[in-house]
Amino acid sequence: MTDAAPALDPAPPGGPVVDDEVVGNVEALVEGGERGMVLNLVADLRAADQATLLRHLPLGAAREVFAWMPGEARSLVLPELEGAERGGLLDGLSTDALVALIDPLDTDDQADVLADIELDQVEKVLVLLEDALDVEALLSYGDDTAGGLMGTEFVAVPASATVAEATEAVREKAATVDPVFVVYALDGAGRLVGVVPLKRLLLARADALVADVAEPDPIAVEPDLDQEEVARVMERYDLVALPVVSAGGRLVGRITVDDVLDVVREEAEEDIQRAVGITGEEELSSSVFAVSRGRLVWLLLGLCGAYVSGLVIVGFEEALQVAPVLALFIPIVMAMAGNAGIQSSAIAVQGLASGDLWSSDLARRLGKELAVALLNGVVLALALALIVVVSGFGEDPARLALTSGLALLVVIVLSTLIGATVPLGLSRVGIDPALAMGPFITVSNDILGLTIFFAVATLLYL
Amino acid sequence: MTDAAPALDPAPPGGPVVDDEVVGNVEALVEGGERGMVLNLVADLRAADQATLLRHLPLGAAREVFAWMPGEARSLVLPELEGAERGGLLDGLSTDALVALIDPLDTDDQADVLADIELDQVEKVLVLLEDALDVEALLSYGDDTAGGLMGTEFVAVPASATVAEATEAVREKAATVDPVFVVYALDGAGRLVGVVPLKRLLLARADALVADVAEPDPIAVEPDLDQEEVARVMERYDLVALPVVSAGGRLVGRITVDDVLDVVREEAEEDIQRAVGITGEEELSSSVFAVSRGRLVWLLLGLCGAYVSGLVIVGFEEALQVAPVLALFIPIVMAMAGNAGIQSSAIAVQGLASGDLWSSDLARRLGKELAVALLNGVVLALALALIVVVSGFGEDPARLALTSGLALLVVIVLSTLIGATVPLGLSRVGIDPALAMGPFITVSNDILGLTIFFAVATLLYL
Repeated sequence: MTDAAPALDPAPPGGPVVDDEVVGNVEALVEGGERGMVLNLVADLRAADQATLLRHLPLGAAREVFAWMPGEARSLVLPELEGAERGGLLDGLSTDALVALIDPLDTDDQADVLADIELDQVEKVLVLLEDALDVEALLSYGDDTAGGLMGTEFVAVPASATVAEATEAVREKAATVDPVFVVYALDGAGRLVGVVPLKRLLLARADALVADVAEPDPIAVEPDLDQEEVARVMERYDLVALPVVSAGGRLVGRITVDDVLDVVREEAEEDIQRAVGITGEEELSSSVFAVSRGRLVWLLLGLCGAYVSGLVIVGFEEALQVAPVLALFIPIVMAMAGNAGIQSSAIAVQGLASGDLWSSDLARRLGKELAVALLNGVVLALALALIVVVSGFGEDPARLALTSGLALLVVIVLSTLIGATVPLGLSRVGIDPALAMGPFITVSNDILGLTIFFAVATLLYL
Repeated sequence: MTDAAPALDPAPPGGPVVDDEVVGNVEALVEGGERGMVLNLVADLRAADQATLLRHLPLGAAREVFAWMPGEARSLVLPELEGAERGGLLDGLSTDALVALIDPLDTDDQADVLADIELDQVEKVLVLLEDALDVEALLSYGDDTAGGLMGTEFVAVPASATVAEATEAVREKAATVDPVFVVYALDGAGRLVGVVPLKRLLLARADALVADVAEPDPIAVEPDLDQEEVARVMERYDLVALPVVSAGGRLVGRITVDDVLDVVREEAEEDIQRAVGITGEEELSSSVFAVSRGRLVWLLLGLCGAYVSGLVIVGFEEALQVAPVLALFIPIVMAMAGNAGIQSSAIAVQGLASGDLWSSDLARRLGKELAVALLNGVVLALALALIVVVSGFGEDPARLALTSGLALLVVIVLSTLIGATVPLGLSRVGIDPALAMGPFITVSNDILGLTIFFAVATLLYL
């Protein structure tokens, strides 16, 4: 035997294995009723890749493939799907079929799947689940809280137990708790007092006490903590599992890092969506009406805001009649006021989201933004003045260049400072600062920018 | 003894412990030269919280506290800081001091810290490091690749080894590899053939073969894979550690999930920054000039774009002279074209970033966006028409309402479709689609929107 491990092959480093071509092939096979070939193909995929396949198949074909898949694979693919996709696949299944699908999952995933099936089914399915009580408790927590993220699968032993007993506890729970990163040490009242990483358990003597090998002062959170804060705690302390304890300190669940990875991406996506004026949480699988509604709120508010901007322009109608060339600057002022404001607000929102920027940093922040705004304002003002002079617009290009450049400088400085201030102000009063970043800043800066521009132009140019 | 574990206390569930007040107190203590009190306070903090403290102190005070801290704590706090902050603290330290600080870190952190010290110091420090060869190899990989993320700390054994031998390997590496999640199984040529989670190692018989307890077909990536793709792989398969293998399949490093959490946040922040027209990577600690430069590129391009929009308006000067009320609609058209486009582009960019949207989904995507755009366009057109009629603007409000509503509908539909198409197109030719999301879409939609509006208005209203 020359090879050390004949049963194992070197890993092919790989990205996704499901692409357009695979999806097209499976679709054709499903249409042809080639159940065996489809199942062979699906069996070679990991659960996450099966989910990718189902996601990109037309719903009819996806339901067919899902129906063909063996029970365990059907269960495992569910947590990998988005809510609306899960709903589509599970729609119309019997209570018994749902129970069989959901029971093998971790309790946190069970709760998530239950949230996507028809309401009258939820009650019926819930009572039949093995961990009904745990899952019901999990469903009582807010979706976006530590309680909503945690599962009740963990290994815990009294701090007075031996390492051998702790190892035995891992063995007993091995089938239901996967992965196991740590064993939690509890005091007599069930309160969390220490954490034993598996490495320590592996290396300690069998008769050593858990209390002696445990890391003291474990980091833990309460169930009602917001998921964004949960993510920050796990990020800050580089944790792969975070215990959740009741107000009394009793261990009630644990959050694993894979769920937090999803949270970080989700929250970042939410911030971008807020920034572009999408309310709710638009997903690729959201319905046309849900998408429309989510985008329309801010579009309508934006319409009203832009109408006010329009009134500002109409208010300076006389100036425009005297010097029609001023209309040239309307889009310039709007673009610059909007952009400068959204840039500084984006940085403030990011700093607040990562926890690195505190609302008490306002003064320091404004000082820096003022310096940046003055620098950029001067450059942009000179560029605009140059454009005006070169184009030779207006009756007195030099004066028009001076006027428009000066107005632009003022607009840039004010817009930048407003962009930097509003998120910090909102955060201080407890409103999501990401709300400020997009349409709100853009609209208010448009109105302000146009007013300033026409006021300066009326004063200096007419 | 009534309490099971007298040495351990229940965990106080906690968020951050460093806030304004703590920072203020430490600053005052540093000014008073109260070294002992500062050190007591700092000793109670975890490394990540010490970093928060240093970050929020004025640089002078931060350098003083850092100089006072004991050697090990100084090392541990370094990976928790941002590049510019690290540079500020390490500036002016001797080669020996730097070596002492950097040597205890994981190799990936050593490489990161080296990137932030003065160039003439790097060479001198590098040769004196214990793991000089490993670190030098890591420095050769691109910052944003798997190689740039990985460390060379891992536990690997031949697949032919026994579980007892693997456990012994964990023990030998216990001091340098922390945390240990898995033991890697290698074939005779050093190629990765399996992964043994610690749980399996803990539960298996001591004389079992690693080849028999290892999970086969491990997921691995090559060193030159982009970090965004690395994050997607770890997210998709819920991994806490990802092995990195050379083209030949040899194990060369591992990436831990905490680094990937940072990547996900970083990439999301980068996408937002691209979206608001910030090039480079602006951090809170970036210098005024770096910030200015990063924001100015797109502001200048935006200025040029807006100038073209202005030319469009000036081109319709006659129409504006005949019906000055048309100026009212300039901000409305610009706001709606920009917003609708940025909304649909944001969703496309997010779908591409998460890997859920493929560029081949274009047709399906456009169909849905068209439906949304028609729906929202009709609602917004009606709202605008209502506003015009109620306000009684123009000489023929009914016709103006019809004209402006119709023009708005066309603008919304086209802007939405452009927003949805451009990111997918850019992605197909290998350009970061986030670039499209912000200024680019806004500027092009402004120009297009204004042209369409004035063309329709000239045709139907004048």
